[in-house]
Amino acid sequence: MTELLQKIHQLNIADISAPLGFHADGQHVGLKHKSKDLGWIYSETPATVAGVFTTNQVQAAPVQLNKATIKNGELQAIIVNSGNANAVTGHIGLEHAKIMQDTTAKVLNIDASLVGVASTGIIGQILPIDTVVAGIHQLNIDGDTNGFAHAIMTTDTQEKSITVQSTIDGHLVTMSGVAKGSGMIHPNMATMLGFVTTDASITSDLLQQALSDDVETSFNQITIDGDTSTNDMVLVMANGLAGNKTITTASEDYDHFKAMLHAVTTALAIDIASDGEGATKLLSVTVNNSDSELGARMVAKKVVGSSLVKTAMFGKDPNWGRIIAAIGASDVAINPDIIDIALNNIPVMSAGAPVDFNQDTMSESLAQKNIAITINLHNGAAHGQAWGSDLTYDYVKINALYTT
Amino acid sequence: MTELLQKIHQLNIADISAPLGFHADGQHVGLKHKSKDLGWIYSETPATVAGVFTTNQVQAAPVQLNKATIKNGELQAIIVNSGNANAVTGHIGLEHAKIMQDTTAKVLNIDASLVGVASTGIIGQILPIDTVVAGIHQLNIDGDTNGFAHAIMTTDTQEKSITVQSTIDGHLVTMSGVAKGSGMIHPNMATMLGFVTTDASITSDLLQQALSDDVETSFNQITIDGDTSTNDMVLVMANGLAGNKTITTASEDYDHFKAMLHAVTTALAIDIASDGEGATKLLSVTVNNSDSELGARMVAKKVVGSSLVKTAMFGKDPNWGRIIAAIGASDVAINPDIIDIALNNIPVMSAGAPVDFNQDTMSESLAQKNIAITINLHNGAAHGQAWGSDLTYDYVKINALYTT
Repeated sequence: MTELLQKIHQLNIADISAPLGFHADGQHVGLKHKSKDLGWIYSETPATVAGVFTTNQVQAAPVQLNKATIKNGELQAIIVNSGNANAVTGHIGLEHAKIMQDTTAKVLNIDASLVGVASTGIIGQILPIDTVVAGIHQLNIDGDTNGFAHAIMTTDTQEKSITVQSTIDGHLVTMSGVAKGSGMIHPNMATMLGFVTTDASITSDLLQQALSDDVETSFNQITIDGDTSTNDMVLVMANGLAGNKTITTASEDYDHFKAMLHAVTTALAIDIASDGEGATKLLSVTVNNSDSELGARMVAKKVVGSSLVKTAMFGKDPNWGRIIAAIGASDVAINPDIIDIALNNIPVMSAGAPVDFNQDTMSESLAQKNIAITINLHNGAAHGQAWGSDLTYDYVKINALYTT
Repeated sequence: MTELLQKIHQLNIADISAPLGFHADGQHVGLKHKSKDLGWIYSETPATVAGVFTTNQVQAAPVQLNKATIKNGELQAIIVNSGNANAVTGHIGLEHAKIMQDTTAKVLNIDASLVGVASTGIIGQILPIDTVVAGIHQLNIDGDTNGFAHAIMTTDTQEKSITVQSTIDGHLVTMSGVAKGSGMIHPNMATMLGFVTTDASITSDLLQQALSDDVETSFNQITIDGDTSTNDMVLVMANGLAGNKTITTASEDYDHFKAMLHAVTTALAIDIASDGEGATKLLSVTVNNSDSELGARMVAKKVVGSSLVKTAMFGKDPNWGRIIAAIGASDVAINPDIIDIALNNIPVMSAGAPVDFNQDTMSESLAQKNIAITINLHNGAAHGQAWGSDLTYDYVKINALYTT
């Protein structure tokens, strides 16, 4: 993977419509007070599609609709609104999602079965469907492509997007991604939307396989507050216009494609963690020498999700006792007596016992935006990572005052 | 249970030494800056004992020691310090716990195998054992019994204690409990200490059975921040001086005893939740009509542990979408389309759809200290409860600045 990642080039300017044949727009149509709130992605030709969806048992209308839509393996457009999640809205919610799909299809003159739908925002309020329908008619095929990344934002403080390129089968392949966080981000696709476009040619089965594998080490390894949402999804569209021989089986080209996807999804995941609600710090937890990759990921995620670790990091407090307590509270068998812990590469615990460190050096180090927590379980050779943010006054403020 | 609870009388003044033959003290000996930090409980005769301990894989020295100590089924004294958890302190930590046990035994002139040890406070710092040993020599048998409840406090803002009485087998039985929270409180005995004394006569096997059953619906149903600690335990001592016929098997007397224990542990658990770090509100979640009691408890706990629900309640925000999202994120199979939710008895969701409510009435109601969230799963006849607190600026403040 590392070798393949070196063959991938990140562009300075990210653009969801950068891959051949893709177009996008994002506008303000009146769902939110002032910000952009409706956008779409359109491909000139039908693309193979893959999707992963929230594991919450309460699933928003657009999630239910998309699960059915992508069964045919193709998608040509995605319509997304922010400001209203269209979740827990009963039968009328499903009708509204279908109206979004049908209206988009009609405006773009494509079949409704080729249109994906996504919503994000407050739960339990009926979508103002007339505003959405009028808005869809306002969107342009060649519109404000950067506006798309803005139109899907809720409490995000900045857009999250990336474009990468690499050469597969002698053809230049471009892949772009946009995502939104930023509260309620936990395991399995919590209020997180991610959209990836690429001009690579790959079957929908392999695309789904690649995405399903990838999210285990990217999006599913971020957590802001441990809550999972009703709306979240990642959709990938691959329209094949790059001209590479279609990737149909596990192969060097497939590995190369997966490396591109990983570069995109991991960058977006870290952007989301870094922009967690109220966050002042990005926490990156690396677990080394675990007896399994899954175990390493579980420990990393338990630590990065601990409220006590998160508040300590906000306070620039090297309270590593909370880190070992979080490790011990995970569902992974560990031996505390052999574990090492370092904060920004400064050892704080070695073989289960405290290590003296220079308080001034530590304070300076913890004042940085990026905090690396490194844990050595001394229990095997596997590795895992997770990302999150600190827990701050602003997290409380943002979430205490969301609907009112 | 309800009928039995009516036979139990709560005294106006709580006192851990109220049961016959019990004595206690709590003093300031120098582990903390000013507050009381060392205390003991002593019974004139050896008592049968039961204990439950943290499920964290990282277990503090006193936890490890007590698990061995109570295997003999008897205890006559418990020594407790605050200000230092004696956790993740390696081999020296175990020696220190043993020194606490031995010194207490010597001063009280009893066998060391009859002394329980507990510590609470910061993790990963070596216990100043000389201060503790000198402190144990300062304690009195008939000392400041109310001081014991204070000596075990960390960030608690108030003592937590209760005394109840009832008549079993024609004899007046007294039972008292004290506990401390208040951060890191989650499932399975997180930084929580609880001590219960009673003059009832009951075998240690049955006492253990009663306690193990009871914590599933009391202490294990409170959560402040989802973290579990290295130190927590509940110990119950029953010295038999009330004179009732020893409870040896499941019987009416045993049920009566269990009802007394439940009255004590539930009151302490709710006190802990109510005094969660930085809390302004007590959240009580009741789940009705579940297909199992365990399922009802799991759903209740998932809701009361959701950061988004907790911040919403702090903000007096009736954002019930977060409640149904938390229900859906639990590991219990539910059907969102048939669920009802009420906040302080005001319906907000019915059969999976929003219910209109008067905003002013709701705002007034959510301004109260006590918030009741009632969930009807319409899926069976079982019932469960959980308790917690809101998530506030002060929670962040307290935990960002704990060690420094």
